[in-house]
Amino acid sequence: MSHEDCIFCKIINGEIPSAKVYEDEHVYAFLDISQVTKGHTLVIPKVHTKNIFETPPEVAKELFARVPIIANAIRDAYQPLGMNLLNNNERAAEQSVFHLHIHLIPRYGEGDGYTPNWTTHNDDYTPEDLQNIAADIAKEIK
Amino acid sequence: MSHEDCIFCKIINGEIPSAKVYEDEHVYAFLDISQVTKGHTLVIPKVHTKNIFETPPEVAKELFARVPIIANAIRDAYQPLGMNLLNNNERAAEQSVFHLHIHLIPRYGEGDGYTPNWTTHNDDYTPEDLQNIAADIAKEIK
Ligand SMILES: [Zn+2]
Ligand SMILES: [Zn+2]
Repeated sequence: MSHEDCIFCKIINGEIPSAKVYEDEHVYAFLDISQVTKGHTLVIPKVHTKNIFETPPEVAKELFARVPIIANAIRDAYQPLGMNLLNNNERAAEQSVFHLHIHLIPRYGEGDGYTPNWTTHNDDYTPEDLQNIAADIAKEIK
Repeated sequence: MSHEDCIFCKIINGEIPSAKVYEDEHVYAFLDISQVTKGHTLVIPKVHTKNIFETPPEVAKELFARVPIIANAIRDAYQPLGMNLLNNNERAAEQSVFHLHIHLIPRYGEGDGYTPNWTTHNDDYTPEDLQNIAADIAKEIK
């Protein structure tokens, strides 16, 4: 199920070294080589899947089941004040490695390396707009 | 299993209205009232759990199993170029509602409302540092 040119498949196979945090039948977790904050970990499925759009529910399920376990291990090791989980899908969302991965970014306070910039658009949508958008999406649920 | 003062529990129960995208036995999905981008959806477990640290693996599993389904529905409805998933845990990571929720933020190109700011610290860590950090975390896996 691995993909020839995928660096994360090579990390799973041991062809490329990594700082491994956790491994089992379904999941591999290792430190992001570009640490945003200390303990910044990537959790990936062993099966190659490009991103969330192409991930079968049963793969997503096994992947995320391990996230609380690994998040708590990071917390127990380094006592961060909080943690952000992030997952980027497609280049427009800053995906750079095309093997599904969830970033676990422990947070230690302002200036620690991660600053999400949100611009909310509350005034752009009426309650009716929101109901219409929800209906647009709901009718595409398969 | 609902929590008295929790607005997301009240949304699940129908006490507070929402723009519902999806609902089943385990999961409820609805539009974030503060739309970062069009179709910005929150996916939450029906069981009240504060954040990822307190979430049992079986709850995390059912929650994330629905994420690819809902992500694809958003894509089919609005053809975004990509999607970011985000989950904030504790105030230091910008958690504001203390009922676990995953943001699905469709991306439409630069200036669409969401700009993650990453500062990576590649030079701060040697390969040995990374192995030591991984070992610190690995020994806390329970
Ligand atoms: Zn791969
Ligand atoms: Zn709740």
